[in-house]
Amino acid sequence: MTAKFIVIEGLEGAGKSTAMQACQQFLADKAIDFIQTREPGGTPLAEALRDLVKQQHEESIAAETELMMMYAARMQLLHNVITPALNKGQWVVGDRHDMSSQAYQGGGRGLPQEALTALSGIVLQGLKPDLTLYLDIRPEIGLARAKGRGELDRIELEAMSFFERTRARYLTLANADEHCVIINAEQPIERVHKDIIAALDTFYLGVKA
Amino acid sequence: MTAKFIVIEGLEGAGKSTAMQACQQFLADKAIDFIQTREPGGTPLAEALRDLVKQQHEESIAAETELMMMYAARMQLLHNVITPALNKGQWVVGDRHDMSSQAYQGGGRGLPQEALTALSGIVLQGLKPDLTLYLDIRPEIGLARAKGRGELDRIELEAMSFFERTRARYLTLANADEHCVIINAEQPIERVHKDIIAALDTFYLGVKA
Repeated sequence: MTAKFIVIEGLEGAGKSTAMQACQQFLADKAIDFIQTREPGGTPLAEALRDLVKQQHEESIAAETELMMMYAARMQLLHNVITPALNKGQWVVGDRHDMSSQAYQGGGRGLPQEALTALSGIVLQGLKPDLTLYLDIRPEIGLARAKGRGELDRIELEAMSFFERTRARYLTLANADEHCVIINAEQPIERVHKDIIAALDTFYLGVKA
Repeated sequence: MTAKFIVIEGLEGAGKSTAMQACQQFLADKAIDFIQTREPGGTPLAEALRDLVKQQHEESIAAETELMMMYAARMQLLHNVITPALNKGQWVVGDRHDMSSQAYQGGGRGLPQEALTALSGIVLQGLKPDLTLYLDIRPEIGLARAKGRGELDRIELEAMSFFERTRARYLTLANADEHCVIINAEQPIERVHKDIIAALDTFYLGVKA
């Protein structure tokens, strides 16, 4: 069985951290060797870019700048972490990946599809997650949860309409992607957990066969 | 007379700083209001990206990462500094601009033209310098000068073949660009200065007419 790339996606407060834990526990139970990643970030340079992208700035940050910084960080993570791990046979469990850029910078910021296609083409060179779990939640509910956790970063402080556009793009992408499972993240946590495990079970049975 | 964008280009040690000074003196003598810029850099975020791109890292930096960081910095500078200045009627004198990415990341690093075209399309949206002065020098001579000035950064530490490819691409681009004047930067400094002033005179007479 070749190593697989599993990605957790969703808005702020959708429960990605809990889903990451469930996914890791699932793989550990199966004695599968894996690493976890987060985006943007995961290498020293990518983490420096993450800090720059998330912090408040005196100057206005162009949407194109944000997009290129996200893809610069993704390039480092792919090149130095994800691809070497997969080549060694380690599974990769990612907290966000390319679908986040498509949803936030494409949907939320309204950047044209050509820009996203150009950058993802340069960076991904065909790599696609084997499974994406998209945790769907209405932004007002997700952001209320995120606020409860503490201070919001530059992107989390966007207007509600930004997150509405981001969620709409997420749903479009998730529905069009046969390797993506949509999880209703507004359910009680035990029910969300059950749906995640069910999706992982189905995926695992498929790849083991 | 609408405001103009003049760019100084060339390898390390070609004499760009001296050319910037000559250009500024020329504009001051004509009582033209101008600002100067440098790339990568020129806004707080762009300067932070400059530091990240120039410093040594423990991890290997993918050429694509470098390219996207350069264009992220360029986007901020264009959006927040160059375009507002030109719109206000201020001329802009730039120490490096897009031709550097084409030469260093395209020629030196060997990145495919499609990647450069995609990024420059997203960022520049048609903006082109009105005049580029390309200071041509053989890399062994330029780098010897640069070394005399102190420690070299991550890019300046590349192999000589990298700079040979960069210079070759510079020459191709400069020869194909009708708004670019090639200055022989290996001449004695007074002669280089004279050639720069002659190029500026010709340009100024053209735009004043």
